Amino acid sequence: MLVQEIIKDIKTPFYLYDFDAIKERFLSIKNSLNGVSSNIFYAVKANSNLSLLKFLKELDSGFDCVSVNEIKRALLIGAKPYKIIFSGVAKSKEDLEFALQEKILYINIENQAELDLLEECAKNLNTVANISIRVNPNVDAKTHPYISTGLKENKFGVSLDVARKMYLKAHKSEYLNPIACHFHIGSNLLDLSPIIQSAKIIKDFVTSLNSAGLNIRFFDIGGGIGVSYLKDEIEPNIKDFFNQIKAMAKDYTICTEPGRYIVANAGYLVTKVLYEKINENKRFVIVDAAMSELIRPSLYNAKHEIICFKDDLANSSKADVVGGVCESGDFLAKDVVLPSLNSQDYLIVKSAGAYGYVMSSNYNSRTKIAEYAIINGKIKLINKAEDFMQMIKGEVECL
Amino acid sequence: MLVQEIIKDIKTPFYLYDFDAIKERFLSIKNSLNGVSSNIFYAVKANSNLSLLKFLKELDSGFDCVSVNEIKRALLIGAKPYKIIFSGVAKSKEDLEFALQEKILYINIENQAELDLLEECAKNLNTVANISIRVNPNVDAKTHPYISTGLKENKFGVSLDVARKMYLKAHKSEYLNPIACHFHIGSNLLDLSPIIQSAKIIKDFVTSLNSAGLNIRFFDIGGGIGVSYLKDEIEPNIKDFFNQIKAMAKDYTICTEPGRYIVANAGYLVTKVLYEKINENKRFVIVDAAMSELIRPSLYNAKHEIICFKDDLANSSKADVVGGVCESGDFLAKDVVLPSLNSQDYLIVKSAGAYGYVMSSNYNSRTKIAEYAIINGKIKLINKAEDFMQMIKGEVECL
Repeated sequence: MLVQEIIKDIKTPFYLYDFDAIKERFLSIKNSLNGVSSNIFYAVKANSNLSLLKFLKELDSGFDCVSVNEIKRALLIGAKPYKIIFSGVAKSKEDLEFALQEKILYINIENQAELDLLEECAKNLNTVANISIRVNPNVDAKTHPYISTGLKENKFGVSLDVARKMYLKAHKSEYLNPIACHFHIGSNLLDLSPIIQSAKIIKDFVTSLNSAGLNIRFFDIGGGIGVSYLKDEIEPNIKDFFNQIKAMAKDYTICTEPGRYIVANAGYLVTKVLYEKINENKRFVIVDAAMSELIRPSLYNAKHEIICFKDDLANSSKADVVGGVCESGDFLAKDVVLPSLNSQDYLIVKSAGAYGYVMSSNYNSRTKIAEYAIINGKIKLINKAEDFMQMIKGEVECL
Repeated sequence: MLVQEIIKDIKTPFYLYDFDAIKERFLSIKNSLNGVSSNIFYAVKANSNLSLLKFLKELDSGFDCVSVNEIKRALLIGAKPYKIIFSGVAKSKEDLEFALQEKILYINIENQAELDLLEECAKNLNTVANISIRVNPNVDAKTHPYISTGLKENKFGVSLDVARKMYLKAHKSEYLNPIACHFHIGSNLLDLSPIIQSAKIIKDFVTSLNSAGLNIRFFDIGGGIGVSYLKDEIEPNIKDFFNQIKAMAKDYTICTEPGRYIVANAGYLVTKVLYEKINENKRFVIVDAAMSELIRPSLYNAKHEIICFKDDLANSSKADVVGGVCESGDFLAKDVVLPSLNSQDYLIVKSAGAYGYVMSSNYNSRTKIAEYAIINGKIKLINKAEDFMQMIKGEVECL
């Protein structure tokens, strides 16, 4: 069936995810890790929809969580605790206690004070905390400054020197068990050589720690594999990439946390044209989606390809695709070539599966939109659109 | 009572608004408009909390709404329809019908196709639509490109030439009644001379329309009055500003749509320190609020003053105040001077009353935080914090 037919009765705007494409992406990583001990922890922050998490769990995915609520999501869809890890720079005491009580695989520690706090929590709970430390290799990931995380001026991780002291301290503690070493230098890298470069540094680091009596078994290379948002962007060869990692870390269980790579290009934001408008010589296509639904263009100046079901090159011209939110920063794409469009024509914003819905807001009192999945050619609602009363519930109760 | 005492039992992070300060701001505009016919339409998009809207309504404020849901908010707290106007570039047929049925004061039209659509809607409903047209005077507001709206390359409004044709057409229609003329050239202007300059252009424009037989009675100068976010930013003298407007538009009812000016500096984001962290020589203060609660620093590079209850200049140094969201773009302030801080110390992000809560998201599965008001020295909950099950409701129902 044509996509137009499948979606024609659904109220726009909405998100649509192709679960078959997601499966393909997940398996391509899994197959690249054939022959070695490995764990794929899907990065829940990219797209945390519960039906999606359940689908990935059934493919044997684990989950990388950056908040207690993300851990709760993973547990809710039946993920085993040993398939969950917990990362993030701002874990509170309550967060750490929750993770310990749920007996997840390991907690990624981001600074010395957090290590001390975790030790205290483990002691109070009379348990042993399995930990990883996020090490900052100070390698430039050459990506957008907002998603580059491996430089010493970033808030993430600790330097090799600090990490060594923390590992040795943890090794001596009866409440801490350092079993993993983690790094993650940035997001959406089309050139993976900075990750390889970092992995070499971390590999030597882990070797020296294990020589000092530690027993680090999980070699956690983070995520960051880039995807092609535009036609001229070439995705990295992940088979080659993982072969290099496998050769380097054959004595360890390799852990990786792909998020964007699995879901970005399998997701679409489906919207309809409301008006065409020409101000002086500038063409605007005004649609029913906005920055409240997809903030990546405004926030990162991210480029998304936009397609429609019309093919009329003769009447095509450049346009800005903008939403109804009341600020000039509300745009989905700038200077994209589109045919002449009418009210109610569809526009499809591609590569919207990652950091789309999860970053959406209620700005301008817009309710959150629905999410749908295509599975085996059939469409299924996986998140109901929010309604007005739901949005204002907490306020009405205080009036 | 000290602020510390008032807030000490409240779970951080949360928003806090000083309603007395809001009242003072509102009245300063109202007083500046003394002696002439005027309407203050509070721009709901700045902060749409229902208790706040109710408070403003009791001060006789009207409401500028940019979505049907904002109109619903105003009606819900008892605003009279004739105290509501409807703006925005992406109004659908259903939106226009709703506004007509509710008999609001006027609808701000943004383009020719919308005018035609409104005429059709009014005809179908057998009513007459009171309209304003948003005219783009092509004056540079000299503000952040994302919040500058009065240039011809912006999506907002129409040029003088186009507006004239639209007004003449509307004048001839039996379903359209052009009663107002509107412009809004940008947000957060500390120098209001571009608004005065625009007002002169629009005044001449309206005079020529009325000479041609129209009866435009509402002279709508939009919002855009800037506020001081930092100590060295000097707020405009609004008394002088409105005196100039009053002198110019004495034959009309003056309408204005302040949002930020009324609420920005009366709002605070209250957060607690989780960790201090030094990466190489860079100091980070990690707090329990994040970009998910206040995105202005990330999105606009907006500067917010941050204060604490400690005063220890000897041990102060520059720091980035960052949240727990997993990206480097998650910061609340960069290079602010702060004393040495401990876990659980408060930090107060100032000037967070506008475009704070309304732009918040559930990124990293963070639930939305509570909002409180201080009224007559007493604190009152005006929006309950979202809970986990509420956040995932739509997804659970589809599992």
